[in-house]
Amino acid sequence: MSRDIKKIIAEMTVEEKASLCSGFGNWHTKAVERLQIPPIMMVDGPHGLRIQFKNADLSDTQNSLPATCFPTAVNMASTWDRNLVEEIGKAIGEECRAEEVSILLGPGANIKRSPLCGRNFEYFSEDPYLSSQMAASHIKGVQSQGVGTSLKHFCANNQEHRRLTVDVKVDERTLREIYLASFEEAVKQAKPWTVMCSYNSVNGEFASENSYLLTHILRDEWGFEGFVVSDWGAVNERVKGLKAGLDLEMPYSGGERDKQIADAVKNGELPEEVLDKAVERLLKIIFKAIDNKKSGTTFDKKAHHELARRAARESMVLLKNEDGILPLKKQGKIALIGAFAKNPRFQGGGSSHVNPTYLSNAYDAIVDLAGQKAEILYSPGYDLETDVVDEKLIDEAKEAAAKADVAVIFAGLTDSYESEGYDRAHLRIPENHRLLIEAVAEVQGKTVVVLSNGSPIEMPWIDKVKAVLETYLGGQAVGEAVADILFGEFSPCGKLAETFPEKLSHNPSYLNFPGEGDSVEYREGLFVGYRYYDAKDIKPLFPFGFGLSYTDFEYSDIKLSKKEINDNELLTVSVKIKNTGKMRGKEIVQLYVRDVEKSVIRPDKELKGFEKIELDAGEEKTVTFSLDKRAFAYYNTEIKDWHVESGEFEILIGKSSQDIVLKEVVTVNSTIMIKKKFHMNTTLGDIMTYPGGLDKLNQYMHEYLKKHGMDKGIKHMKQSMDTEMVKYTPLRCLPSFSGNEVSKETVIKLLEDLNS
Amino acid sequence: MSRDIKKIIAEMTVEEKASLCSGFGNWHTKAVERLQIPPIMMVDGPHGLRIQFKNADLSDTQNSLPATCFPTAVNMASTWDRNLVEEIGKAIGEECRAEEVSILLGPGANIKRSPLCGRNFEYFSEDPYLSSQMAASHIKGVQSQGVGTSLKHFCANNQEHRRLTVDVKVDERTLREIYLASFEEAVKQAKPWTVMCSYNSVNGEFASENSYLLTHILRDEWGFEGFVVSDWGAVNERVKGLKAGLDLEMPYSGGERDKQIADAVKNGELPEEVLDKAVERLLKIIFKAIDNKKSGTTFDKKAHHELARRAARESMVLLKNEDGILPLKKQGKIALIGAFAKNPRFQGGGSSHVNPTYLSNAYDAIVDLAGQKAEILYSPGYDLETDVVDEKLIDEAKEAAAKADVAVIFAGLTDSYESEGYDRAHLRIPENHRLLIEAVAEVQGKTVVVLSNGSPIEMPWIDKVKAVLETYLGGQAVGEAVADILFGEFSPCGKLAETFPEKLSHNPSYLNFPGEGDSVEYREGLFVGYRYYDAKDIKPLFPFGFGLSYTDFEYSDIKLSKKEINDNELLTVSVKIKNTGKMRGKEIVQLYVRDVEKSVIRPDKELKGFEKIELDAGEEKTVTFSLDKRAFAYYNTEIKDWHVESGEFEILIGKSSQDIVLKEVVTVNSTIMIKKKFHMNTTLGDIMTYPGGLDKLNQYMHEYLKKHGMDKGIKHMKQSMDTEMVKYTPLRCLPSFSGNEVSKETVIKLLEDLNS
Repeated sequence: MSRDIKKIIAEMTVEEKASLCSGFGNWHTKAVERLQIPPIMMVDGPHGLRIQFKNADLSDTQNSLPATCFPTAVNMASTWDRNLVEEIGKAIGEECRAEEVSILLGPGANIKRSPLCGRNFEYFSEDPYLSSQMAASHIKGVQSQGVGTSLKHFCANNQEHRRLTVDVKVDERTLREIYLASFEEAVKQAKPWTVMCSYNSVNGEFASENSYLLTHILRDEWGFEGFVVSDWGAVNERVKGLKAGLDLEMPYSGGERDKQIADAVKNGELPEEVLDKAVERLLKIIFKAIDNKKSGTTFDKKAHHELARRAARESMVLLKNEDGILPLKKQGKIALIGAFAKNPRFQGGGSSHVNPTYLSNAYDAIVDLAGQKAEILYSPGYDLETDVVDEKLIDEAKEAAAKADVAVIFAGLTDSYESEGYDRAHLRIPENHRLLIEAVAEVQGKTVVVLSNGSPIEMPWIDKVKAVLETYLGGQAVGEAVADILFGEFSPCGKLAETFPEKLSHNPSYLNFPGEGDSVEYREGLFVGYRYYDAKDIKPLFPFGFGLSYTDFEYSDIKLSKKEINDNELLTVSVKIKNTGKMRGKEIVQLYVRDVEKSVIRPDKELKGFEKIELDAGEEKTVTFSLDKRAFAYYNTEIKDWHVESGEFEILIGKSSQDIVLKEVVTVNSTIMIKKKFHMNTTLGDIMTYPGGLDKLNQYMHEYLKKHGMDKGIKHMKQSMDTEMVKYTPLRCLPSFSGNEVSKETVIKLLEDLNS
Repeated sequence: MSRDIKKIIAEMTVEEKASLCSGFGNWHTKAVERLQIPPIMMVDGPHGLRIQFKNADLSDTQNSLPATCFPTAVNMASTWDRNLVEEIGKAIGEECRAEEVSILLGPGANIKRSPLCGRNFEYFSEDPYLSSQMAASHIKGVQSQGVGTSLKHFCANNQEHRRLTVDVKVDERTLREIYLASFEEAVKQAKPWTVMCSYNSVNGEFASENSYLLTHILRDEWGFEGFVVSDWGAVNERVKGLKAGLDLEMPYSGGERDKQIADAVKNGELPEEVLDKAVERLLKIIFKAIDNKKSGTTFDKKAHHELARRAARESMVLLKNEDGILPLKKQGKIALIGAFAKNPRFQGGGSSHVNPTYLSNAYDAIVDLAGQKAEILYSPGYDLETDVVDEKLIDEAKEAAAKADVAVIFAGLTDSYESEGYDRAHLRIPENHRLLIEAVAEVQGKTVVVLSNGSPIEMPWIDKVKAVLETYLGGQAVGEAVADILFGEFSPCGKLAETFPEKLSHNPSYLNFPGEGDSVEYREGLFVGYRYYDAKDIKPLFPFGFGLSYTDFEYSDIKLSKKEINDNELLTVSVKIKNTGKMRGKEIVQLYVRDVEKSVIRPDKELKGFEKIELDAGEEKTVTFSLDKRAFAYYNTEIKDWHVESGEFEILIGKSSQDIVLKEVVTVNSTIMIKKKFHMNTTLGDIMTYPGGLDKLNQYMHEYLKKHGMDKGIKHMKQSMDTEMVKYTPLRCLPSFSGNEVSKETVIKLLEDLNS
């Protein structure tokens, strides 16, 4: 329905407008009945709906209407499957529509800076490209159903520790290339209806009142047109926030801050246009939601459960599979050990907690799938409610394992370890899980570990077991999905969207996580995740992009569309992948770009493309990637734009970040010339490497350069203390260092000439 | 002689005063004959004199008057022997006096941030305590002879790359605790006559015009009373520099800048008192130098050579000694391989280059020592002038090694690798040295490597050889010293004053060295050297403080004078050391302090004491350490002072930084109460942990806290999302988060109460 929103706004009182800038209760916008402005409802996501019962306490995350609990974000990202994630989004969108929810509060695109962050399971990746691609797909899916999303938590909310008060100190390039980039493509491509600002402050300004983030970047640069909603309780100074671009405060905070807005308009502190603009953004989305509402729709619970199962299957990452112990055969005695086998851990704690429509467990699913041919034993091994080791349970588990042909241990992190609201303190699993694994592995050589955890853990026992399947937090159909993978109904095809470090101290943020008091410095800068392990040559337990399969893939024939391009042209890269194994399977093909020579600090390589393909045994397909300027660029803080340094770039095709199998080189030429400003502290070396600089120098001081063997430039000079001293000499020192062979007058003339 | 310096200054014209603020030629201060102000001479150090011939070019570092070339600073530091370093200083002081040198331009107390820094051999350590202790001893020694020193390069000059233009961005705590601390004790204890400011800029201001460094810290805080001289060519804006505390510009720069000073006084830009103060500082030192001059003195070349030998011997670090292959027996055939055996590398390049009075080499010394009983073979193995592998030389070396009973390879870095003026690009030794070691080790199981290099190198071949002796750059008597150690005339007793990383990428500065353009960020912060390897749990090739001996030492009986002290009291620590081996030897006992619980980011442990003792076989001695506040304190940037956080500290006694053998705990109580300012963004958790805060909270909101299980404080709460959310709640959010159970009025009253 077309409405004249400007006219509606013109009819509103200042108080009405101000009132619209905060919610009604916990989950709704306010209505203005007089003007037929209806309320709309928002609910928590991102991997399923959490619709609280009426009058429930905001912090009661355990009870809500049943909804499909899809695999969590970490699982979605591990699928590396844009279409599948979009399909999940679509299904969640359907459920929203059926429940009259207008906006799903998700997805979360925060970067996994540390594996300790309590909310990592709600986020996608340590890599901004993968993260933003996944977020975009999720948003597209949900919004295809006429339901909005709220891309969160914008931005640099990478820890739960002191999240309401912590100030994140991060340099501009890192903010741009890592933390903002993780949101950028999702905003630009998928156009979320809303964006949720985070609790924390960024470089001294709360995200909720940070006009650089909420207006300059999000709106002016990225073209975001929806409204910005505060994370629940994120507002600090309301009027400042409104000015900065925060439209909606959630939840309702008692009217005091609505009044602050109205008062500020009245006393001239806040231009009314600012308020009008916020109201306009709100109304546009509110009416869009209303117009898209379809009453009486339902959703197919069974179909959604099947989708959850498919997604869980695709998200699991096979980390180890010695002697091809997996897939298991449906025969003999199989011992299922660990209480998670019957009581799966399938989601994390906090606002994303979903009350599932069904819940499968691995024990039942395995009995269903293999119980007729194999004998399935079970032993709980540990008590779910405690970390304390129960020797009796462990002894029983050993007994079961010893008499079986193979043992499958279900272990990982229990509920209290991973939740919104706080971070982990270490990467260990509970002591009773760890000892169970070690005890069982002692008596059973064929031991498989199935892990449930939302973020990396240490595996000191890895050498003692034959196989490890990382299921993360796989949603309500995790039980069937695990059975499918374990028995080879489906070949595992997930890959890690994050690095598993050998130990916590190796993580790049380790020395500066979670910071000091209310300040955290992102001193590792650009070197987040694999960017760090690569550059520092520190071997991780499992690298980013890693995951095994039951079949094998061969890569060949990398081809570039051109050997040399300008930075405003596209480069097409193709590569052939063949399934050389015996089973149908999927492969995630990764493309990384490496700047060969660089004058700025850059990671060794960065993910700039990926495709997931399915291949029958023996089948071959060609995968193509298209790379634009951004694939080669870094954020140049001087020109405040993305910039490509002319030169060679390696195109690396990998099975993982550490398993690069094909490589080609392309030359990319910048179409942007950055003019250098020369001054008395510019060095001779810098002038020499600037286009035309060497000629100019020779024009003014050829004899001097020649004497030092530098008249042909730096590339041709022989390194010695003498040449290095000349190279590093700033113009101001030249008269003195040259014994006045080059006079101050000459230097001044040269400078004028260079700058003209 | 007593003079009225103020009166002399009063008689000087502005031009005369200004002229005194820059040198005469390269090495002298200016004279003012009219007022009987004589010139004084300064010459390069720090491990020997470099007196250039008349009219020599400043950059001619190869030719100078003969002087004793003592072991370089890296060797001095590896002795960990305060007395010995002072003795060397005394000897250098004698040589200065004999040559009418008034000020020795050294020592250098810059921290070894990266092993790549080309000038590391001129510096002491990666640890500020060790570095400042060594610098203090050096200064005391030189100055005991009535000759001044110039402690350099002040400060944060930790790379040669772009040293004239680079801006060092370093946070205040790191600057204080690491980079300044390395100078601080040397200034306070040893009172150098002069300090030399560095080329680089620090946080945006050139060191040569940085009043925070030159005046606020150096003079006002540390009580420095001498003059500050510029590194040769370090002046940028002369008047600004003078105002900031730079008294003397070196070398003479043509008079232009003297005129700038005079003009600035005349046009009122520069208060004449500032100039007078600088001249006063200059004159005090100039006259002090003159008054201390003794004409006609000489020095005992032979005795100084013997001292150089003794020092070299004490400085060598035995890194590996498998099967007790060392000491060598004076018997059979011994193959000496590598041109360094006859042409030792014993010092680095640049301004510290000394023309030695004698020069011993290992070949001659070994023939002297063992040639009567053993057959000494020699094969050069490589060409000194090139890195290119000469297969013929390698084959000859293999042949010699194969027919000997043991091979001793002399290898390391050649001259072009290490010099003032540029940094290394990697940690590799020349290819022809590496291949020689590998080739010889292949044919001779008993291979010893003797290394000459000024800074850490990679050792990919370490597992192939039996022993490695690090001689660093051992000065002119290195040959005899090596022979002494190899044949057991003396037990090795040096220990590393720096970490040898397994690979360059593991170094803490790696991602930010040498920076981007003219900017380098010290992002590793406090985590320099072993502080990083400790905290990150990255195994180095050889840790800080490590070094083997021919004998064994047993540590026992650690005793603290008290179990609990106030931070204004001294703690005495004693420990017994026994020589349990069969040979007389020396041991370096190290004391580290670890803050057990800390609210700020701190290294895991820090060196706060060391003693070197000599013990006969079977002998036992007690070593005592005295620790004051500084041993437990960090630099608190809020109160701008050193501060101890009350609590437990571990006193760790180690044979090296990674071999801690004894431990005790002391409780240190701060006598300083830092008053916290509470505000709307202070969290409940922070109030709870502040003295008296929990009581106050209970007074205002007991029911609310009790409901969340937090009325007894944080230590007694059970971690859950609920408690964590409450803990992290800032006061501003409390009304909203508590559903107005705690009202805004209550919060305001509480705040007033807390702040009163």
